[in-house]
Amino acid sequence: MNHCSACGSPVTRGIPAGDNRERYICSQCGSIHYQNPTLVAGCIPQWQGKILLCRRAIEPRRTYWTLPAGFHELGETLPAAAAREALEEACTRVEIDKLFAVCDVVHAGQVHVMYTAQMIDGQFGVGEESLATELFDPEDIPWRDLAFPSVRFTLERFVAETATLDGGVHTVALGADAGRDLAGWPNGGS
Amino acid sequence: MNHCSACGSPVTRGIPAGDNRERYICSQCGSIHYQNPTLVAGCIPQWQGKILLCRRAIEPRRTYWTLPAGFHELGETLPAAAAREALEEACTRVEIDKLFAVCDVVHAGQVHVMYTAQMIDGQFGVGEESLATELFDPEDIPWRDLAFPSVRFTLERFVAETATLDGGVHTVALGADAGRDLAGWPNGGS
Repeated sequence: MNHCSACGSPVTRGIPAGDNRERYICSQCGSIHYQNPTLVAGCIPQWQGKILLCRRAIEPRRTYWTLPAGFHELGETLPAAAAREALEEACTRVEIDKLFAVCDVVHAGQVHVMYTAQMIDGQFGVGEESLATELFDPEDIPWRDLAFPSVRFTLERFVAETATLDGGVHTVALGADAGRDLAGWPNGGS
Repeated sequence: MNHCSACGSPVTRGIPAGDNRERYICSQCGSIHYQNPTLVAGCIPQWQGKILLCRRAIEPRRTYWTLPAGFHELGETLPAAAAREALEEACTRVEIDKLFAVCDVVHAGQVHVMYTAQMIDGQFGVGEESLATELFDPEDIPWRDLAFPSVRFTLERFVAETATLDGGVHTVALGADAGRDLAGWPNGGS
């Protein structure tokens, strides 16, 4: 950030009155520009005991497998965002079931929120951000080729619990050392 | 948003290539400026069967009672944010227990994430953003004077479950009709 989004003047770093950390402050109009972590919403789409995964067509982690997930947009709930991403990335309509995992991804400035979901009619396709989509039996999940630590965490907990499905919500803080590059998933993109 | 934060030129509204909704786009350098919902983290600080509440010293909802909560900052986990807010607003050190509630507050562009917490030594004080802080027995919670629907939702579920504490996580979408003004809680503030 170099300029004030309100007036266009240069910004400087400083601690505003009543605050306790550095922010971008406009040198001209005094506007304070906060930067905060971003939410990513996703789901585990299920059909007849299988899980729908997407092979990424975009960076970061192009060609790796992921659960459908993407940035939470203004004007929607988190479950709505998770269902929308399933539609966009895997062309499948889902009914969101319950909150399953909340993953702090601090080094990327993100929180990943994952829901369980049922595919409504078993239909799916390949969205613009996917190279392929496929229903996997739990024993066939491509563990070595998963895109992100939060996807691995969610699938591991899900597979471990499939027998009961009453395990409540799972939380984790995923550090920069939790696996492959997540920071490349840019904040605020679609 | 009037100007590009990268180069200072005027921005326009438009749908970027590969996207499906309007964003702010720089007329000069082409930078896309996303706007996404913000996370608020809070907790239910407990001490010997009582709950610590804060009477707000700032707008919105000045003089109304709230759980300590505030905006999630870059560089911290959600539980760390919840504990920090308890320290800042109620001068109390807490140990975060578990994720308790996730509230979609769509009209405010926010998600409120609430944790249960234990006060470490029972000590508390009055932070800069509070007029007062007080330990309440569950039957004495000032229901008519709570600041936000998400605080009411969280406390209602918590009081209903105090006997068991095994109820998993609670989720809700709170609309503009859910109660008093939440939209006044500005995005990205501290």
